[in-house]
Amino acid sequence: MKQTTFALKGTICYSQSQNQIGVYPDSYLVCENGLCAGIFSELPEAYHGIPVRDTEDSLIIPGLTDLHIHAPQYSFRSVGMDMELLQWLDNIAFPEEAKFSDLEYARKSYSIFVNDVKRSATTRLSAFGTLHVKATELLMDLMEETGLKAYIGKVNMDRNGPDILQEKSARDSALDTIAWIEEVQDKYKNVRPILTPRFTPSCTDELMKELGRIQKQYHLPVQSHLSENLSEISWVKELCPNTAFYGEAYDQFGLFGGEGCPTIMAHCVHCPDEELALIKKRGVYIAHCSQSNTNLASGIAPVRRYLEAGVKIGLGSDIAGGFSVSMLRVMADSIQTSKLYWRLKDNAAKPLTLEEVFYMATVGGGSFFGKVGSFEKGYEFDAVILSDRNLPYPQEFTPLQRLERLVYLSDDRNITGKYVAGTRIF
Amino acid sequence: MKQTTFALKGTICYSQSQNQIGVYPDSYLVCENGLCAGIFSELPEAYHGIPVRDTEDSLIIPGLTDLHIHAPQYSFRSVGMDMELLQWLDNIAFPEEAKFSDLEYARKSYSIFVNDVKRSATTRLSAFGTLHVKATELLMDLMEETGLKAYIGKVNMDRNGPDILQEKSARDSALDTIAWIEEVQDKYKNVRPILTPRFTPSCTDELMKELGRIQKQYHLPVQSHLSENLSEISWVKELCPNTAFYGEAYDQFGLFGGEGCPTIMAHCVHCPDEELALIKKRGVYIAHCSQSNTNLASGIAPVRRYLEAGVKIGLGSDIAGGFSVSMLRVMADSIQTSKLYWRLKDNAAKPLTLEEVFYMATVGGGSFFGKVGSFEKGYEFDAVILSDRNLPYPQEFTPLQRLERLVYLSDDRNITGKYVAGTRIF
Repeated sequence: MKQTTFALKGTICYSQSQNQIGVYPDSYLVCENGLCAGIFSELPEAYHGIPVRDTEDSLIIPGLTDLHIHAPQYSFRSVGMDMELLQWLDNIAFPEEAKFSDLEYARKSYSIFVNDVKRSATTRLSAFGTLHVKATELLMDLMEETGLKAYIGKVNMDRNGPDILQEKSARDSALDTIAWIEEVQDKYKNVRPILTPRFTPSCTDELMKELGRIQKQYHLPVQSHLSENLSEISWVKELCPNTAFYGEAYDQFGLFGGEGCPTIMAHCVHCPDEELALIKKRGVYIAHCSQSNTNLASGIAPVRRYLEAGVKIGLGSDIAGGFSVSMLRVMADSIQTSKLYWRLKDNAAKPLTLEEVFYMATVGGGSFFGKVGSFEKGYEFDAVILSDRNLPYPQEFTPLQRLERLVYLSDDRNITGKYVAGTRIF
Repeated sequence: MKQTTFALKGTICYSQSQNQIGVYPDSYLVCENGLCAGIFSELPEAYHGIPVRDTEDSLIIPGLTDLHIHAPQYSFRSVGMDMELLQWLDNIAFPEEAKFSDLEYARKSYSIFVNDVKRSATTRLSAFGTLHVKATELLMDLMEETGLKAYIGKVNMDRNGPDILQEKSARDSALDTIAWIEEVQDKYKNVRPILTPRFTPSCTDELMKELGRIQKQYHLPVQSHLSENLSEISWVKELCPNTAFYGEAYDQFGLFGGEGCPTIMAHCVHCPDEELALIKKRGVYIAHCSQSNTNLASGIAPVRRYLEAGVKIGLGSDIAGGFSVSMLRVMADSIQTSKLYWRLKDNAAKPLTLEEVFYMATVGGGSFFGKVGSFEKGYEFDAVILSDRNLPYPQEFTPLQRLERLVYLSDDRNITGKYVAGTRIF
């Protein structure tokens, strides 16, 4: 029994299937060498004497994974919300991201982001940086220190941006990307690079070809945006007349999942059937970003359809299309919009349940990082302690009712502890 | 110049029309005898020497009005959210409300509610109690102490409820209501009674007749629910075969606005044209409860249509169909659902803007209480101080951008001061 063995005591909840949350009141969750070793109502003899953190009947849940977030957009989240996607990009997001050529500005902005995401219930994330290599490396440095596990991408964009936020050529973008990968690929314990073509309208075919080659050479995962907004989709159709649907614009360059190319595509609000079939075939992860899709008036993604199709799906905050970094809030938002989808669009698409969004936020997104998002034996020990002490109530609630309250009512004050791969964050 | 004259200093924002928020940076908002006396960049000589509370560049906005909230449901907000309206009433809301026959339970539950609403940005509210006279009086006592101004209603319900939450007869319900009115009508400075038939399915025609008589005798305002949910609307059609639409079920008993009968109808998600016409003719207030309509999968109210029709409309949290008592959050929710309505239902119905929801939350709902919701001269001095100091940012934001951030990001920590009719709450 090594020194890295310890236990958390509290009411333990984790997904045992997409439709069931297992609940273990007043139990011990044991960590050994960074992995989950089991849940026990009494500590077995082999564990007598290990350190125990008694959370005093707080809830203990698996860490939450944010599959899609733009780190440089955090400090201007919730500004300009009365705009649609393309207008918001031109007026708010692009001018702001351009400021990250200034490393001092980047440090101020990223420090705010990193501080807040550290205190949140998020243990793993896949984040966009900006096109700037130095600022992206700074973000990786800052994120490494938090102890959270993150994929972080230097963004590629060589067309249709403003002069202040565009790479000079596909070749320049590719060279910068290679230099960046060489610099960071073995530098960190917690942080890893991910290829990040912004989205098809921002990347020439030439750049996409380069990125396809880089992907094959360095075996990096990929993240981008897919079928978010109707105007964007029409634009992609014009830009890529040779493709039958948006997903093919990535797939033709080997940037859409498949063997050796784990891929996250954010949004998928308006996927035609062929696109969904390819997503499934290639094992692409969908990052469902309900709040962002609402804020930018993109629509509501048909999540019930995706769950029934059995595709890989997790949740994303999509800061700053979304404004909240809280993955608990993202869960609540996902339930809410699924109800409106059911009521307004398709009354065969049953609303999402608490169990389903909890699954997507834990196992669903976590599996992009390996054995993550569960307390089954052998999973990485990512855990979050949720206290509801500042939310008093006069009646009795079951653990699942308490969890439901925290999904809807919690803020950073309710996140009282966090562990990533066995390391205590706070 | 009396001792009740004082000023707040900060960045002052209030609605000057439905589409414009006036902004006065670094200015003084003067209160005289509980009323707004003016906004000044420098204090005029007549006011030299009055006490000034310097908010250090916080935003100062009019107090917010919550036009629809169920006080006894607060302590179980966000529990059972995976249900629709009628199922949720039977399984969660009704059994919980039944507990308010026990005054000790009522005190525990209402204390939690009153404490939280006091710390919120809400200065005025119109609340449902339960059918219990004693518990409703207790709620009124507790609310009176907060200094907030509130209409509070003992609920009437004599049919279709569970045995544990139903009045024995229309006559009993009426007698209880009269006894309650006699007890409370002159008792308070801040709190006033409002007639509160729960909704048509809960009230026999006989009871409605009695309430119509009571309304005429005591000149009380009225609050109830209207056209919230499709199943509810079909049910009302069955219960009231003599009516052409739901609103007539109230109107036939004189409980639907008009001279001497100020009325709030919550929801109005699915109003036919004739109903909207009657709402306008009778001057009925619509309490738009976006979050609740989402949570209970009722749908999205066509607010753009109501604004264009020029009907009276304010916002409501509808605790516990809604789970958040924050009227700032209610504003954000209203913008969000209006975007989905526009995208999914009617692309002629432009999404609501920040200016419009701010207007509805201040002047819109406030006008139910008189000259309330504005800082124009002569309005009651209801003011809220909003600090964004715990939401740091590296860039410059305009006052309206700061307001937008607070609408989306604030919680109780950002509400650092509140005044109602000139009285400092904190």
